[in-house]
Amino acid sequence: MQPAERRYVLTLSCPDRPGIVAAVSTFLATFDGWIVEASHHADAAVGQFFMRQEVRASTVPFDLTELRGQFSELAAQYDMTWAIHDTAAPPRTVFLCSKQDHCVVDLLHRWRTGDLPCELVAVVSNHEDMRSFVDWHGVPYHHLPVPAGSIDDKRPAFDRLRDLLRDLEADTIVLARYMQILPPDLCDAWPNRVLNIHHSFLPSFAGGKPYHRAFERGVKLVGATCHYVTAELDAGPIIEQDVVRVNHADAIDDMVRRGRDVERRVLAEGVRLHLERRVLVHGNKTVVFH
Amino acid sequence: MQPAERRYVLTLSCPDRPGIVAAVSTFLATFDGWIVEASHHADAAVGQFFMRQEVRASTVPFDLTELRGQFSELAAQYDMTWAIHDTAAPPRTVFLCSKQDHCVVDLLHRWRTGDLPCELVAVVSNHEDMRSFVDWHGVPYHHLPVPAGSIDDKRPAFDRLRDLLRDLEADTIVLARYMQILPPDLCDAWPNRVLNIHHSFLPSFAGGKPYHRAFERGVKLVGATCHYVTAELDAGPIIEQDVVRVNHADAIDDMVRRGRDVERRVLAEGVRLHLERRVLVHGNKTVVFH
Amino acid sequence: MQPAERRYVLTLSCPDRPGIVAAVSTFLATFDGWIVEASHHADAAVGQFFMRQEVRASTVPFDLTELRGQFSELAAQYDMTWAIHDTAAPPRTVFLCSKQDHCVVDLLHRWRTGDLPCELVAVVSNHEDMRSFVDWHGVPYHHLPVPAGSIDDKRPAFDRLRDLLRDLEADTIVLARYMQILPPDLCDAWPNRVLNIHHSFLPSFAGGKPYHRAFERGVKLVGATCHYVTAELDAGPIIEQDVVRVNHADAIDDMVRRGRDVERRVLAEGVRLHLERRVLVHGNKTVVFH
Amino acid sequence: MQPAERRYVLTLSCPDRPGIVAAVSTFLATFDGWIVEASHHADAAVGQFFMRQEVRASTVPFDLTELRGQFSELAAQYDMTWAIHDTAAPPRTVFLCSKQDHCVVDLLHRWRTGDLPCELVAVVSNHEDMRSFVDWHGVPYHHLPVPAGSIDDKRPAFDRLRDLLRDLEADTIVLARYMQILPPDLCDAWPNRVLNIHHSFLPSFAGGKPYHRAFERGVKLVGATCHYVTAELDAGPIIEQDVVRVNHADAIDDMVRRGRDVERRVLAEGVRLHLERRVLVHGNKTVVFH
Repeated sequence: MQPAERRYVLTLSCPDRPGIVAAVSTFLATFDGWIVEASHHADAAVGQFFMRQEVRASTVPFDLTELRGQFSELAAQYDMTWAIHDTAAPPRTVFLCSKQDHCVVDLLHRWRTGDLPCELVAVVSNHEDMRSFVDWHGVPYHHLPVPAGSIDDKRPAFDRLRDLLRDLEADTIVLARYMQILPPDLCDAWPNRVLNIHHSFLPSFAGGKPYHRAFERGVKLVGATCHYVTAELDAGPIIEQDVVRVNHADAIDDMVRRGRDVERRVLAEGVRLHLERRVLVHGNKTVVFH
Repeated sequence: MQPAERRYVLTLSCPDRPGIVAAVSTFLATFDGWIVEASHHADAAVGQFFMRQEVRASTVPFDLTELRGQFSELAAQYDMTWAIHDTAAPPRTVFLCSKQDHCVVDLLHRWRTGDLPCELVAVVSNHEDMRSFVDWHGVPYHHLPVPAGSIDDKRPAFDRLRDLLRDLEADTIVLARYMQILPPDLCDAWPNRVLNIHHSFLPSFAGGKPYHRAFERGVKLVGATCHYVTAELDAGPIIEQDVVRVNHADAIDDMVRRGRDVERRVLAEGVRLHLERRVLVHGNKTVVFH
Repeated sequence: MQPAERRYVLTLSCPDRPGIVAAVSTFLATFDGWIVEASHHADAAVGQFFMRQEVRASTVPFDLTELRGQFSELAAQYDMTWAIHDTAAPPRTVFLCSKQDHCVVDLLHRWRTGDLPCELVAVVSNHEDMRSFVDWHGVPYHHLPVPAGSIDDKRPAFDRLRDLLRDLEADTIVLARYMQILPPDLCDAWPNRVLNIHHSFLPSFAGGKPYHRAFERGVKLVGATCHYVTAELDAGPIIEQDVVRVNHADAIDDMVRRGRDVERRVLAEGVRLHLERRVLVHGNKTVVFH
Repeated sequence: MQPAERRYVLTLSCPDRPGIVAAVSTFLATFDGWIVEASHHADAAVGQFFMRQEVRASTVPFDLTELRGQFSELAAQYDMTWAIHDTAAPPRTVFLCSKQDHCVVDLLHRWRTGDLPCELVAVVSNHEDMRSFVDWHGVPYHHLPVPAGSIDDKRPAFDRLRDLLRDLEADTIVLARYMQILPPDLCDAWPNRVLNIHHSFLPSFAGGKPYHRAFERGVKLVGATCHYVTAELDAGPIIEQDVVRVNHADAIDDMVRRGRDVERRVLAEGVRLHLERRVLVHGNKTVVFH
């Protein structure tokens, strides 16, 4: 859970070699920076090192700009890809939804009760249905219809969506059963910052109608997958997955009902992990520091 | 758990219509047959009805042949596919294994402690490794090498295997990580009576090296699937599945280790369900009366 | 899932003996009543038989009163405790909640989307907080404050609550983290019709502050239990339970957060099973026909 | 999974303060020690810091004695409780079992296939039953009968057991369903090095006949708990727990059967975590670095 206490979150990855932990922790120790939580991972297969550190902001004797400046010298020595985020400036986040509202209702509740550390700047939908519900939460609602038809037919709508997201200065975009396939340029504009929930245990049943196909195949579990969106459909880095048991007595509608529970849970967990800067992407895989 | 008490197990399927349950239960009630366990399922999508009844043998006032004879008249009226089995004559079963022995060791233990109601007539392996372990259990061991190479190269070995299984009068055949793909004629000779454990959550990662491919894809759960073997690889009716959580810190070897646990459990559960006549096959799907 | 199609749901229990299934199914077959779903259970330990049947209302050639009348003769012969419910007249249900709103928000969503087959007649709370949210759902909201203090201090409030529930003709009452212990007379007035969610895996940590005590004990899983409320605190018949993994890094607040998910899910599942008449109580235990 | 590659495993705990990670990692960095895996935990509630580091032995330019000597100076500064273990000298381990053999059979298989990094010096049982099975594994078997009766009656047997364990220079003792309550002096002689599997989800159903009591209470899940043995029965620090679903149709025998699976799995996981030095005890709780 994101703490009330203000923290700086350092995330980095670099080629693995001895001395990285010593260098970073010595850097923090020089000014008595208090590490509240620390996680490392060395991926032997690719020779890459990953790290996440949470430091009490009150123990850092200078401001964020100075902290970044000082760290950048160290980072250069080790060829690090890195970031330092301030929990006092949580990601500007937009939820996109459609008519099936179980995921967005769940996310709104978690946001309202403090489980999702973000600044929720808007909910965008291709339908009007959820306006008054979102209004109740005090969150701006944007109705942006997307026509049926081909990619070309939808192009103007997606251009408006991209402009809207830019105007909102969105950092993180959550597709909460949005039911539209984003065009590649939109995915590319927010790399590893657009999260989707797919209603199957990927890579099984990528694409449309996964519950129908699960029913046809006679599987005994159905699942859900939270992943970053990339230009290739349902093929981006996986953040979180889970499954629920079904049996022969479950018709497709029952699978859909049982699946809703796991979709909600998996998306919420994936979004929380992302917002807390616990997900590092390398190639098409994620390191998730729970 | 299979009871010490002797029972008759009636399984049937037929086109769905009113009165089936009444007809069957009245048939049993005419001679005060005591139903210990009863399960039904009506599959609305295909209009098919499925039933399983366990009756105390001591409450049936005639022998199995007479019971079958009397029931056959009723069965004909409703166009039933049916069987009546006697728990005193459990299925003659053969385990096939290779060098990876975790599944066969587990099955042998469960058989020895009474969890798997079968007459275990043999263990067959393409290696000698497990002979003395199987000997300790008092079960015949057959070493039947299968050469590397093409289907044609393996043909003579599989012919010998088919002959051996026939000589053993095998009713049920369990591929306990046998690591060989059975030729179609062998699958067809024991339809819905050859059980396999595949080390992935099917339909994901059908075919070879599923853990390697799961690792490449970065999934957060790995699974196992127990299914009936058909001529199409890893595509037969699914009996049981389960998964276990993995994370970025798990190398392929760790996935293999975690996967062994779920393979063992899923195969043992699938085999038990089959042996207790709880699995009814319809098309490429199963009805499993737990 | 509760079907759109109208059904009669027959539930019964009686001393076990041969012929019960035949008698009931023959009764239904005389008028070609179409059984959509049937479940039985014989409890060998106590010699009791339990049954649930769902019949298509359109296949019953007379009305509910007549159906009950005809069945009552059969029921008397077998000494049955029984009921026949009409899915067109779902239980009049009241949700009781307090400040922690995750359960009631979840139940409202499921009710709104058709997952909970009930007539939701009111939400009652000892606080005003949720009024406008409940209003949005078009459900009456009753603010009924309960003072801090002794049972005697709370007595007048609980008398008003009992009167309110009677005025509302409540059939089923759901304590959605209500945070008040109902006095015995209230529990007794709705036997096996008041459902509670307790935030532990009972019988562990019955009573107050279960997460604190789970943290102190250092357990590796925390759970939730949906049960019928009886005069003895947290000791009524259990309907549904589940758990979620925690570890040393989880502070009490984290346990609370993880626990909310499982509370929501377990309560919703327990309420659905109850509303669909799938829960039969015998002594202090439940038979649940999933 | 314990690697073939030789490693030194450093575990420590000390009062929390800034600079610990820097001090330890700098110590290792001075000689280019390669950290393969690192885990920390700061317990805010008690102000205690915990750490585990795995270092490639080949990157340490002196022997274990020298490494310990050098580290002891640092350890003294931070008031650490610490240890450095060599994976080339795995714990001398003894399994204790009785007639119910599912746990010991499972542990022996995992040991044989390399999943449990220990030197298995003996299996001790109060019965002869498992002798030839253990012999097959090439592990010494000791039959040490324990009479029925009071603690006093059993005293001589437990004295012999203690002497035997001392003669065997046992480091770790695993009670694999041993079915005897060890006297306090034996528990105290191997503090946090005697592991037990209890067949319930503790703290529920501590003491005898947990499945019977779970059945009476009507719980919907049964569990198992691996914990360190202390003088107070079933109250020691918990290492690992898990549960499995049961329902009304499960008689006590079915619960026992389903429970065996989870007992096996939980004990094996707890033993592996302990042997890999992943479990640090603080008070009556554990920090487990998975």
